[in-house]
Amino acid sequence: MSNILNIAMASVAREIDAHFDALLAVPDDGRRRLYEAMRHAAIGGGKRLRPLLVCAAADLFAVDRDCALRVGTAIEAIHCYSLIHDDLPAMDDDDLRRGKPTVHKAFDEATAILAGDAFQALAFEILADEATHSDPFVRSELVAGLARAAGASGMVGGQALDIAAPGSEQDEKSVTRLQHLKTGALIAFSVEAGAILGRLAPEGRLKLRSFAQDVGLAFQIADDLLDAEGDADTVGKAVGKDADAGKATLLSLLGADRARAQATMLVDQALARLNSYGAEADLLRAIAVYSISRSH
Amino acid sequence: MSNILNIAMASVAREIDAHFDALLAVPDDGRRRLYEAMRHAAIGGGKRLRPLLVCAAADLFAVDRDCALRVGTAIEAIHCYSLIHDDLPAMDDDDLRRGKPTVHKAFDEATAILAGDAFQALAFEILADEATHSDPFVRSELVAGLARAAGASGMVGGQALDIAAPGSEQDEKSVTRLQHLKTGALIAFSVEAGAILGRLAPEGRLKLRSFAQDVGLAFQIADDLLDAEGDADTVGKAVGKDADAGKATLLSLLGADRARAQATMLVDQALARLNSYGAEADLLRAIAVYSISRSH
Repeated sequence: MSNILNIAMASVAREIDAHFDALLAVPDDGRRRLYEAMRHAAIGGGKRLRPLLVCAAADLFAVDRDCALRVGTAIEAIHCYSLIHDDLPAMDDDDLRRGKPTVHKAFDEATAILAGDAFQALAFEILADEATHSDPFVRSELVAGLARAAGASGMVGGQALDIAAPGSEQDEKSVTRLQHLKTGALIAFSVEAGAILGRLAPEGRLKLRSFAQDVGLAFQIADDLLDAEGDADTVGKAVGKDADAGKATLLSLLGADRARAQATMLVDQALARLNSYGAEADLLRAIAVYSISRSH
Repeated sequence: MSNILNIAMASVAREIDAHFDALLAVPDDGRRRLYEAMRHAAIGGGKRLRPLLVCAAADLFAVDRDCALRVGTAIEAIHCYSLIHDDLPAMDDDDLRRGKPTVHKAFDEATAILAGDAFQALAFEILADEATHSDPFVRSELVAGLARAAGASGMVGGQALDIAAPGSEQDEKSVTRLQHLKTGALIAFSVEAGAILGRLAPEGRLKLRSFAQDVGLAFQIADDLLDAEGDADTVGKAVGKDADAGKATLLSLLGADRARAQATMLVDQALARLNSYGAEADLLRAIAVYSISRSH
């Protein structure tokens, strides 16, 4: 991993932990278990890729770092909720996440459902807070963008596609679309959020969204490869589940070699989209390269 | 039911149905089942108490009705999500809601979880939309208020209290607090939203919030009485569940006579909070009176 990325990732991870620690102070009442479940899910784990993307995109426009981190915390709250709900028995039924028991295992199913629900509300509460940005127009744009990325036309829609179609009926196009919704929408919004904070007009945000979609898909292919070839101890969650579930992935459709080539092509394409930027985009470039070189 | 309320309730119910019908057009892809589940939950049922409260409060300030209805739709989306998730096997495990099978019964658990999640995102998407209000400050205030009312310091927090405390440890004060969070927060925000649309300053909204808290608690006591004394056909959901689950309610703590007196006192108190308003508050008054006179 490049040095610039190493430093940025460590400091974003530390700062996001600190934000969640402050936001999730455990109350001295019957909600204790809910808050403890939320802390279990949100603190001390995860690559914080989405907050990192917000900060890296915000760097392009010299946006105040505190604003970018608050927006990153909001997006990470949505990511946390989606992981908690995805892991539920009725969904992927996973016992392990980021090397720890999943929330419904460490606590219980009802608490896991509620913790996910509370994280979604928290995300929008953060974005609508004056502390995140003084301009209500910017706050409103952030809320609109995150709501679209998270809902039925974004992440949740992708989940629905995922459980709807048997692997046998999927082709490269439909799997790509599924991934664009399921994970791409939130990743694309992470980069777009930096541009919204930088007051870039909607048409100017398109190239950055495309950059993020490419990186998101490359990341997903790398995840598929890790799922197929990694071991649970390194990856920090159960592996081999996609194949066991008969799920079509770009890996299963293309084979390892073509999938790897596709990921490399996506990263090259992503880098080209940053051509008009100078050194201020170096962190974004480093994230793009990192997306396919991870071991976990 | 008074005539003014009868007419207002019917027209709000029709308009909310029309909004959901337009928002939830079923896409021709693998998300079909998700959207059908959302339509099942959102269209053609429910009293639409919360949207009615938004419209009634908006009447005090001559707010554009379309704005009020859009905000009412957003709040009803949150209400729909909470009902879908509450009914899940890991939560209240209910088979019947508004006289129809619950979403996880009519569809499946995974779809019910996703439908609830999508409704929450939809709510914030509606509020952040320029079509809801042209002033981004108003939109941002609405998002902040709804997020607080829905999250861990509001509705979800109330749910957590509800599953945390065994009935034997509850007293009148703790049950009242639980209800203020679990159902009162969203009802209070419904009235407050009308005031936000009317650009009433935060300090001016307090009396209207208190009005709504009183009505919400009176409504809850009436619900408890229906749960204990009604039959499932009239009420449209399973009855007698609170007693079976050993849950403490104001009814179980106070007994039927004192609970009824408490509800009447709350409605009188609510009405007094509207003393400074004239005929423009008649619909709010009618809702307050109706809250304890329902048979379902």
